[in-house]
Amino acid sequence: MPELRREPIVGRWVVIKTDPELLPGDFEKEDHAPHRQATCPFCAGKENLTPPEIEAVRSEDSKPNGSGWKVRAVPNKFPALKEEGAFEKTGIGMYDMTTGIGAHEIIIETPDHQAQLPDLSLEDLADVLDTYISRAKKLAKQKRFKYICLFKNFGESAGGSIEHAHSQVIALPMVPKFVVEELEGARNYFRYRGRCIFCDMIHQEHQDKERIIVENSDFLSFCPFAPRYAFETWIIPKKHASDFTTISSGEKKELAKMLKDILGRIRKVLSNPAYNFFLHVAPNDYDSPESYHWHIEIIPKLTHSVGFEWGTGLYIVPTSPGAAARCLRDN
Amino acid sequence: MPELRREPIVGRWVVIKTDPELLPGDFEKEDHAPHRQATCPFCAGKENLTPPEIEAVRSEDSKPNGSGWKVRAVPNKFPALKEEGAFEKTGIGMYDMTTGIGAHEIIIETPDHQAQLPDLSLEDLADVLDTYISRAKKLAKQKRFKYICLFKNFGESAGGSIEHAHSQVIALPMVPKFVVEELEGARNYFRYRGRCIFCDMIHQEHQDKERIIVENSDFLSFCPFAPRYAFETWIIPKKHASDFTTISSGEKKELAKMLKDILGRIRKVLSNPAYNFFLHVAPNDYDSPESYHWHIEIIPKLTHSVGFEWGTGLYIVPTSPGAAARCLRDN
Repeated sequence: MPELRREPIVGRWVVIKTDPELLPGDFEKEDHAPHRQATCPFCAGKENLTPPEIEAVRSEDSKPNGSGWKVRAVPNKFPALKEEGAFEKTGIGMYDMTTGIGAHEIIIETPDHQAQLPDLSLEDLADVLDTYISRAKKLAKQKRFKYICLFKNFGESAGGSIEHAHSQVIALPMVPKFVVEELEGARNYFRYRGRCIFCDMIHQEHQDKERIIVENSDFLSFCPFAPRYAFETWIIPKKHASDFTTISSGEKKELAKMLKDILGRIRKVLSNPAYNFFLHVAPNDYDSPESYHWHIEIIPKLTHSVGFEWGTGLYIVPTSPGAAARCLRDN
Repeated sequence: MPELRREPIVGRWVVIKTDPELLPGDFEKEDHAPHRQATCPFCAGKENLTPPEIEAVRSEDSKPNGSGWKVRAVPNKFPALKEEGAFEKTGIGMYDMTTGIGAHEIIIETPDHQAQLPDLSLEDLADVLDTYISRAKKLAKQKRFKYICLFKNFGESAGGSIEHAHSQVIALPMVPKFVVEELEGARNYFRYRGRCIFCDMIHQEHQDKERIIVENSDFLSFCPFAPRYAFETWIIPKKHASDFTTISSGEKKELAKMLKDILGRIRKVLSNPAYNFFLHVAPNDYDSPESYHWHIEIIPKLTHSVGFEWGTGLYIVPTSPGAAARCLRDN
């Protein structure tokens, strides 16, 4: 019998349709980005192919925009939003619009074209996390930016047009809709129960056990009860925290371990699928930090999204989160 | 300069990024479903490959599940929701779920494997619309179904796993989230202004002109001001109506003309892309019909959706609706 499950934070319903249940190997193989090392603008030695770097983790004797770096943050050559210009709001008859002010940066995660995140050493992964934190902090200082999005598209069918390991940072002049819904859902729960809904989910996952993939001293990874996609995976700090940028150096090491582990499991179990991850954080200067809990959501791209889903917001998921967690846990 | 535009009904923001603006020919070609006529279960003569038909438009001397039909409604062999069983709600700790009660049907739109909707005669298209209406009406009579979804996935990258022209009908035991948001947005507007927001949009589109593709006596087609996707196209009745199933036979003829015209334009201008369409209607027994206006939304599948969009609900659209409407209008 299919199940309808209610996502507890925003109230989204999903259909868990497990007759038949799709397991690794049952999904159509999708291409991920082809090898195009020869023309890759993110490789060591090709620093002149990107706009000048904003910041980098590099050896002391190296120079900006030269070689000798481990992580580079550069402006996106084709930005979705632009930093220059004023933030202006206009009405066009009944419609509202604003100028597209914002920042759009790329974080190149390694000079090595062949390496993806799970191939990096824990030290190198910590450097990547340091750069995430540094860019998020610096962009948040600009008062006109209300929300900082950090995400990764890996593989063509997940929107990753360049294969070389990189993430993207977008600073927005408003808090986007899905984030507002998540914040409000969590805030309503906090008002009603006096507890963080994410902390309660961690407790519930520990009780139920079946959806947990793996955990370490600071982080838990699990397949959520009401996912939107098969093998959707969350990584969440076990201790309540609304602000990703304030994690301790000990936590950073544990997060590097967890990311390497989980992305490695997804690659192995699902045959190197395209995927997206998205860092869910509170808006800059958020006034209800007790109700929000930062985390990372990872979506392997295994099926095509269909008309039904964008028309309704009701997702049909062909793998139960318990089965998905078991596949990822036991590999 | 990119623009941020606010979708007026649910309040979703979108980025219109037109530097460079992508026009037909600039999009990566996606495959749509391959030809598999030999094994197609929807072709004339293969009626035994589907579950027994629920209803059909067929010649008077023909028999159910035999040949001689023009349109057939059959149960989905692999339904997302099932009709049998009781609707039961359960709590699993902090989580909520229900049994997956519902109906999931296929409307086979022609016996001809090679024909798609824009290839059908206006008479045959009217038969398809009659079947849409008949199924929607009959499913709505079951009190346990709260919402009837009618949609079409064409092409593999839009989730259309079978090439033969067909649509799907899903009856749900609850009103899904995106529909609730659209209803509430429209109801709030009505409370504030005393007018239907969709009627106001029709008025605004007539004033602005640039986003209109084509219109006839009863229907308007246009590219909405704040689309989620490039070349997103709406078809809307010019006269206020919340219930699709009550259209007059005159309106049905005009809708058949409009669908044939618009789907033909999309096929020609965008080189036969995969697409989804979704019929937006009010829930069964809706108590605020004055505030809601049924319409069809069509989404050609031209780009991959990315991590940013599912993470934020903020869409980045590479073609302005004015340019999209111009391309579709002038062809």
